[in-house]
Parts: sequence; structure tokens; C-alpha cells
Amino acid sequence: MPFRMTEMVGCEFPLFAFSHCRDVVAAVSRAGGFGVLGAVSYTPEQLETELRWIDDHVEGKPYGVDVLIPEVQAVDQSITTQEILAAIPSEYRDMTARLLADAGVELEEAGPVPGSARPNTSLGQELLEVSFNHPVRLIANALGTAPPEMIEAGRRHGIPVAALVGAKEHAIKQIEAGVDILIAQGGEGGGHCGEVSTIVLVPEVLDAVERARADIPVLAAGGIMNGRQMAGMMAMGAAGAWCGSVWLATTEAETHEVFREKMIAASSRDTIRSKYRTGKYSRQLRSGWHARWEEAGLPALPMPLMMLLSEPVLRAIDKAAVNGNPKARELCSYFVGQGVGLVTEIRSAGGVVQDFKSEFAEGFEHLAAAIG
Amino acid sequence: MPFRMTEMVGCEFPLFAFSHCRDVVAAVSRAGGFGVLGAVSYTPEQLETELRWIDDHVEGKPYGVDVLIPEVQAVDQSITTQEILAAIPSEYRDMTARLLADAGVELEEAGPVPGSARPNTSLGQELLEVSFNHPVRLIANALGTAPPEMIEAGRRHGIPVAALVGAKEHAIKQIEAGVDILIAQGGEGGGHCGEVSTIVLVPEVLDAVERARADIPVLAAGGIMNGRQMAGMMAMGAAGAWCGSVWLATTEAETHEVFREKMIAASSRDTIRSKYRTGKYSRQLRSGWHARWEEAGLPALPMPLMMLLSEPVLRAIDKAAVNGNPKARELCSYFVGQGVGLVTEIRSAGGVVQDFKSEFAEGFEHLAAAIG
Repeated sequence: MPFRMTEMVGCEFPLFAFSHCRDVVAAVSRAGGFGVLGAVSYTPEQLETELRWIDDHVEGKPYGVDVLIPEVQAVDQSITTQEILAAIPSEYRDMTARLLADAGVELEEAGPVPGSARPNTSLGQELLEVSFNHPVRLIANALGTAPPEMIEAGRRHGIPVAALVGAKEHAIKQIEAGVDILIAQGGEGGGHCGEVSTIVLVPEVLDAVERARADIPVLAAGGIMNGRQMAGMMAMGAAGAWCGSVWLATTEAETHEVFREKMIAASSRDTIRSKYRTGKYSRQLRSGWHARWEEAGLPALPMPLMMLLSEPVLRAIDKAAVNGNPKARELCSYFVGQGVGLVTEIRSAGGVVQDFKSEFAEGFEHLAAAIG
Repeated sequence: MPFRMTEMVGCEFPLFAFSHCRDVVAAVSRAGGFGVLGAVSYTPEQLETELRWIDDHVEGKPYGVDVLIPEVQAVDQSITTQEILAAIPSEYRDMTARLLADAGVELEEAGPVPGSARPNTSLGQELLEVSFNHPVRLIANALGTAPPEMIEAGRRHGIPVAALVGAKEHAIKQIEAGVDILIAQGGEGGGHCGEVSTIVLVPEVLDAVERARADIPVLAAGGIMNGRQMAGMMAMGAAGAWCGSVWLATTEAETHEVFREKMIAASSRDTIRSKYRTGKYSRQLRSGWHARWEEAGLPALPMPLMMLLSEPVLRAIDKAAVNGNPKARELCSYFVGQGVGLVTEIRSAGGVVQDFKSEFAEGFEHLAAAIG
């Protein structure tokens, strides 16, 4: 058991898979990695169903859950989502209506609003309680500093709490808050991200941990798509790799056929760090969606307004793209990192873990050969 | 001699130091690394003087030269610099005049225009000829695809030609052009850079080399400030590291006291990728300079106009900053990568090479310990 993360969370190989898809989570853990279910958008009932399914399919291997207990409530919870939507200026709704009409896409009934659009403390805590009724081995806080109630709950259940950081300054706050594991995510990563690149951020965060005389492992995230990169980041001092984008190109993933084809075709220059999806900067596959918003010259709405407006529209676009609408295909996008340039095929999630293991060994061999 | 780069260019340790300062070049090579003199802004006579000095101080160790032979002449060489300057719209000259007046800085006589502002083929070839009269072991082309005359000259003298690339697509062109070494520079690096991060770009370029069935080593550049990062990049398959920013924080460097203090104080988030210096995107220390240009709302002039306008102004600002003008200090900036966040002290260039060597061994130990 040479890996530090093996001791902390029980996985054989310190490759962490962040995924919204239970199939990926179970497959990665079964293969010796560590699956983490992104549960921010679930209701407690949905999460219970998902975790029960994972328990039935993970063959006793360890896994974790990523939830969100916001430090500050982003939205007054007494206001309804409909009231929030009504507050969106009409020029924005006109813009999405025009965009949909031009592409010949019809917006269906709004459907459920993603929970992440309206993070709230009590929902986060309920999700946490659901998680602790399952054999989870890690709790990750999706955004911002982990609040005391999360740290305390982790301590009470003997489960380490991890937090994502995109800047050294955030790492210092998380260390003070008492997190057990830091995930340093570089700006090349998919989803919400900062601007500092992984190979600069990881040493900066390791240095912050050392200065604080804290004994906290740091996982490297952002741009990691193979085991050679993972080995490289561990040579720099990381305790393992936390990956998101690589799982989107697996047979088990929630991604649809059109997006998979776009991932395979994309180069690393085909992503964009843009506010035109959630209202905060997040890295996504660059598409006609971003071009249209830039053309319109409307600044992105703040979170969660931008998310409430765009998510139903993007879901309708996805559906039309899958049904063969070429204009919808052009608009279709999703969160993905620059590592998309390294995607050449769709593999099984378990196969990706096995590939990482042999590439990791290759990475070590590269260095061993260089040392002579 | 386990390192591939040792065979190709004769250095003991594959750490390449790009520097405009002959002292850094000689010190790095003496310490077992490989110094590369950035010679783009020299006249042939100046370069001759510099290389003679290096020969006298390098103790027979190998070094290289970085020149520029542009594929396309950026500027009609029959037009004088004064004519070019006269073509700059008056609002731009008014803007720099206001900026200088507000800071109480006086613009001295314009001084020599950097050669890099007016790259031209015959100057590049003259610099190349000067270089070949010295025992250089590497020629690097600063920007764009290495032209046939450079490749041929390298072949004729048995000296490998290296080229910097910031995107896989550029690497493919350079491979076709026949370069001997590729330097994959991530967007976190200082100076002119693309947007793809080092840990994504290096695997992409390695993959392009493999697909082309070419046998070309790839050096990793961008964000590398210590030997653990270098080991990490070599685990990923790089043949060595090419660094610029780390040498700016050495006792031998051309940087002045004020900029050194700003480097030590800076975090990785204090850089900006901006056109407001040369006219092309380059990463620099973020300062009042960029804030003032953004405020003014004037788009950057194209290269070389922006460079011709800004360089004399920035030199005057530097001088005033060193003389204790606090407003000039605030405006003072220079090319530097995100790795500036890892600068904590000023060391000797030779000391940096020694530190890299022991950190490189540490990086290997990290991995060896992880493998068990």
C-alpha cells in the first residue's frame, strides 16, 4: 500500500474520477481508482437512489460524493425559481428565443432546475446526511471554502473532506478551515476554474501547505488525461490526480453521441473560459453558443441567473443535435478542459483506469531512464 | 550520458536557460545546464561582442543562440523607423504622453529600437553567420516556423535547430520544415505565448511527433521554476526543460531591483496575457501599465507599432522606478510567466541549476516512493 491516498480513502491507485454519472463512478472504483459522484444537482431522494445503485455495483470498492454547502446563500430561498426567472431582463430572453428560432430548436417545458443553480445550506446538509448512510470514503465540497458543519460532519463520521481550489489564496483559507485533502485545479480544467495553470498551482498549493505546517495531501487537477501526466504531477509532489474531462469520453458517461464526436474532433484550442453558461467563468467546449452571445454583446448575467436561463435552452439544443439538427450541433457545448485535445477515442471507464496504470508506469520509466 | 539532450547539444543536465543576459548564459552552462542567448535585439557587431565574452567565461561548456529569421518580413525594410513611428495615430502618442506626465516620468531621447521590433531576414542571417563563428551547439528560432535557410545553415554546420511552438498545429508545421528540436511552450509562460497549458501542450506535441514518425525531442516550457516540475515534465515524455522566467530572479540577470522586488511579491495571479506591449499576446507582470491602457479603451496597435511606441516609454518608466518614483514603480512591468508566483528570493544562476538538479532527484524519489 505505497500510496498515501490508499491509506486515506482505500483505493488501490490514486486516480480520482469526478463524474455526474453513477456508472462511471462504480466502474472507476471497481477498476482500482476512486469514483466521486457529483451530487450537487440531486434531490436527497435522487441521491439516495444513485448511491444505492452504486453500492450494488461497486463490489465493495471505495467511492465518494461531491456536494455543495455554500458559505453564503447565493439566493434568498424564499424567492421561487419562477420569480428569479422573471427578473431576467427581456433582452436576454429575446436573445435565447432568437437563437433557438434561428436553429429551428423548440424549447420544451422548462423541466427541473439544476440544484447547483440554487445552492442552499439545508439542501447541502441533507445530501451530506444521505451520503453518510452509505459507505462513502470521501466528501468533496464543490465550490468555495468548506463550511464548519461539513468539516465537523466529516470528523464525526471519520470521513475525509476534500475541497477544490484554483488559487493559492483559496488553499490557505481551506487549510485554515480544516479540510483533509486539497484538490488544486488548474485553469486548463473543465468547469469552473481560475486562471493559474496546473503545473504552477500544484507547487504553489504544496508550498502553502508546507508553510502552514499542515499535513494535507494535494491532488492535481486540470488537463490530466493520461497516466504519464499523472506520474508527472506526482513527481511534482501531488498525492494523486483528480480528473473530470477524461470520463466524458467513456462509454458509460452521460454525454451524448454528438458531443462525443465533437470531443474527438477538438484540439486543445477549442475550449473557452467563459461566463456564458453559469454566470461564473467555466471552461467549456467552444461552440456557436459562445459566438452568438459574444455577437449579441450582452454581458453574462450573474450566477444563478445565467444558469437558470441557459440550462433549459442548452438541453433543448442537445436534444435537437442528437436528432440530427446541424445548427443545433454547431451550438452544442458542455464543460470540458483543454485536455479534450488529447481525446482520440471513446473507451470504457474501467479501460481508462487500466490505461492510466500502464501509462503511470511508463512515466516512471521515462524518469528512471533519464536518471540512468 | 543518459540524457538524450546531452548527446545532441553536449550539456550534462537538460535544463535550458533562455536569457538576454550573457552572464546568465555562461553561468548556467558552467553549472551543467545549457544557456541560450536571446539575440534578436542585437546588431551583428553587438552579438559578436557578447559571444566573444561568453566564450571567455563559459569554460568550454556548450551554449546556444536564439535568433529570428522571419518567414515573412513584418515591415517593409525601406521604410525608416521614424516613418513607422509617424504612422502611429496621435491618440496613442497622446495616451503615453499623459501616462508619463501623470507619473512624473520624462521620456529621454528614443534610443535604439529593439531589433525584434523590425525583424528582417538579412539581419537574422547575419546574426546566424556571427553565431556560427563561435562554438554554439544550438540555434533556436524565436518566432514562427524556422525558414529553410536556417534549417540548411544548421545542417551545414552540424548544429541542431530548435523552434518554439505554442500549439500542436504549429508543431506539425515545424516538423515538416525539418527542425531538430521542438520547444513546446505553454500559455502560462512569459513572453509571447498561446493559450494551451504546458501539461496539455507537451503531450499533444509529443503525439504530433509520433504521428509524423519523426524522431524529434520535445523540451517542455512554460511555468517551470524548479527541478520537481522538470522531472514531472520528463515523466510526461519531455527531453528536458526550457525556462525563461526563473533566470530573471537571479543575481546575474538584466532585471533591475524594483522588478525583482515585484517578482518576489507577486503571486501566480499577478500576470496578464496582453497585447499592450508588443502588439501580440505576451505574458507579463500585471501592472498599472495594463490598467491604464484598458482604461483608455484603445485597442493595442499591431506589431511592431505597439512595440516601437511602448518600449522607449517602458524603459523611461523603469529608470524612474529605480530612481525611487513610486508611480513609475506601480507602472513597471516586464515579460514573466505565472511561475513568478514561485519566486521567493534572488539566487545565483549557477545556484538555480544546482537546485534544479537536487529537486529533479527529489521528483524522481517522489515517484519511486509512490511506486513502492
